[in-house]
Amino acid sequence: MIKVEDAIAIIEANSNKMSTKLISVSKALGYVLAEKVISPIDMPPFRQSAMDGYAFTHSIKHQYDIVGTSQAGDHSNVKLKANEAIRIFTGAFVPDNADTVVMQEHVMANKNSILIATMPEKHSNVRPKGEQIAKDAVVFEANTLITPAAIGFLACLGITEVEVYKKPKVAILVTGNELVQPGKNLKKGKIFESNSFMLEAALETIGIKKTKVYRVKDNLKATKNALKSILKKYDVVLISGGISVGDYDFVKEALLQNGVQELFYKINQRPGKPMFFGSKKETLVFALPGNPASSLTNFYIYVSPAIKNKLGFSEIHKTKVVRKLNSDIKNNTGKTLFLKAKYDETKVTVLDGQSSAMLNTFAVANSLLIVPEDIQEYKKGQLVTLLPID
Amino acid sequence: MIKVEDAIAIIEANSNKMSTKLISVSKALGYVLAEKVISPIDMPPFRQSAMDGYAFTHSIKHQYDIVGTSQAGDHSNVKLKANEAIRIFTGAFVPDNADTVVMQEHVMANKNSILIATMPEKHSNVRPKGEQIAKDAVVFEANTLITPAAIGFLACLGITEVEVYKKPKVAILVTGNELVQPGKNLKKGKIFESNSFMLEAALETIGIKKTKVYRVKDNLKATKNALKSILKKYDVVLISGGISVGDYDFVKEALLQNGVQELFYKINQRPGKPMFFGSKKETLVFALPGNPASSLTNFYIYVSPAIKNKLGFSEIHKTKVVRKLNSDIKNNTGKTLFLKAKYDETKVTVLDGQSSAMLNTFAVANSLLIVPEDIQEYKKGQLVTLLPID
Repeated sequence: MIKVEDAIAIIEANSNKMSTKLISVSKALGYVLAEKVISPIDMPPFRQSAMDGYAFTHSIKHQYDIVGTSQAGDHSNVKLKANEAIRIFTGAFVPDNADTVVMQEHVMANKNSILIATMPEKHSNVRPKGEQIAKDAVVFEANTLITPAAIGFLACLGITEVEVYKKPKVAILVTGNELVQPGKNLKKGKIFESNSFMLEAALETIGIKKTKVYRVKDNLKATKNALKSILKKYDVVLISGGISVGDYDFVKEALLQNGVQELFYKINQRPGKPMFFGSKKETLVFALPGNPASSLTNFYIYVSPAIKNKLGFSEIHKTKVVRKLNSDIKNNTGKTLFLKAKYDETKVTVLDGQSSAMLNTFAVANSLLIVPEDIQEYKKGQLVTLLPID
Repeated sequence: MIKVEDAIAIIEANSNKMSTKLISVSKALGYVLAEKVISPIDMPPFRQSAMDGYAFTHSIKHQYDIVGTSQAGDHSNVKLKANEAIRIFTGAFVPDNADTVVMQEHVMANKNSILIATMPEKHSNVRPKGEQIAKDAVVFEANTLITPAAIGFLACLGITEVEVYKKPKVAILVTGNELVQPGKNLKKGKIFESNSFMLEAALETIGIKKTKVYRVKDNLKATKNALKSILKKYDVVLISGGISVGDYDFVKEALLQNGVQELFYKINQRPGKPMFFGSKKETLVFALPGNPASSLTNFYIYVSPAIKNKLGFSEIHKTKVVRKLNSDIKNNTGKTLFLKAKYDETKVTVLDGQSSAMLNTFAVANSLLIVPEDIQEYKKGQLVTLLPID
């Protein structure tokens, strides 16, 4: 049995990044850059007006003749004389010998000329060429997550493709003779299988959209055979159930017989203690507890960071949140507790129903409150640490 | 020009919920329930063992003969005599006349009998029928967001379909003669069009996966005609650019001529002041500023909550975060500022490059720091409010 922080460290150390591929920027949301991106252009590509107004050469004069117009998209590089200005709009090209734009709100204008009421400082309202980024400068370093803003920035530089880490192929193997598919008739002693649906959805929240689900009966041969082919085809294998010490839990044996190297088994935590983590070549194997709430807890604590590591994320853990506790918590287990909790802008409330079999609490929780194994008690009003969940 | 909080309130008041549809639970991630869900079964459906161990009828006796086995999925309702126990596994059916399960770690066992070393209390380790939820009880109220945990819980109750709010059909209309598609040759005075890619990606982060993009030239007739057909087909229309006071900004006029009712125009904020919000029947229209950073800011502040309202969310705004400020901030604008910022577990740092045209800052920000219009100054070390962004 190992500590939570050791389990996290072992997973981090063993989850190698995926290989890379070229992808269209318009489809790159949620991918992570595998190499740095260099700007092919200056941005802006020319001196741009930052306002709707008039471009002129700064001087002590307040009156200027209007000799033309520069609208966004135009390239009318008029040569302005000392007493001349042009009408200009936001984003438009500023003629080479104009150095200043005055806002239209600061002038008196008629058809042919303007009188500047409030004189701007020289260079005002002109965005220099390359102000945002110069040609050949680094746009993004490797391992940058591609967000909507990143897509916008890449597109505005004219970049259409980027090199990203591939998404891992993930399989879910569900074990358990007690399981019946939802929609079928529930015979006595059986329960509906739900972990595969839950884990598929949890994977989708971190960008893994296609997951293949396999199901086997609780026996060594079936489990071993199913794993044999699964281990060859997938980058990450999640196994649901069959991993506690019960006489009918064959998963660990089936994994070892398939050449999976055990990296740890059992973690000093509640819920979620019976979990196996191993690897075979580049494939990671997580045998998760069959209890739904334990399974989902361990998904958030262990599986999600491992997959983010494979995806190339530089920050694989969610930013933790600190809140004031709304009640007392006792921990006489000597284990790290992960309690389903709901936080708002000021406080956190531990929810009723923390049993490892209970998913209903999880469905209304927005976080896991972490009580470290060496903490026996948190008092109401104390600041505690939360892991936000989706 | 209206205040930020008034703009938010007007959008909330005018964004009606979508109509509803039946959807498979396995595809329901990110949808919101349109009606409450009732449990068709007791969960667990029978008394379940919470441990691997032995089921027996609690008494003062410590020694019991093993007369059978109940594995998860079995339904062997053996009648236990006073001195009898059965081997039982986690999740398995507990025979009707057994009332207690002892953990296997707490017994000395041979093939035929056990000696209980640590006697559990009566009823220990037996999950009562319906402990999680009783038949006909409410599983989820209407307007619950369907998370991975919710999908797991619905599936474990055997529920295969739920009634949810439909996702709105969203169109993006891009205006601007200065715009060239990425990948094409950038002529003088032109810039690459990026807002449509950015907004499509931003929509995807809130579950809107298919967005149609339209493009028009900067003239009234083209804009008016394009809007005429778009307004008929979509639930939400985002227009990029053409909404400031420049002589060449036709969007507002084109909207009004198409019968769109103006609900507000211009907000007392920076960046993102020139924005129009209106509606025609159930269709919402957001004319966003053409500057990329302004456009994305207003997407997060206004468009995202409006779409979440249409999707049926009960909480349409992201939970705000409070952090210690890492520098001084001055606000002599009289406007609400939305500053691109990066926060960690303890503090928040305002990023360089807050210009409305600059997306590069946005790409590394994880939040918008809100400086209300009536605040002239925040000092380093002060607690400030952030809106997290994806």
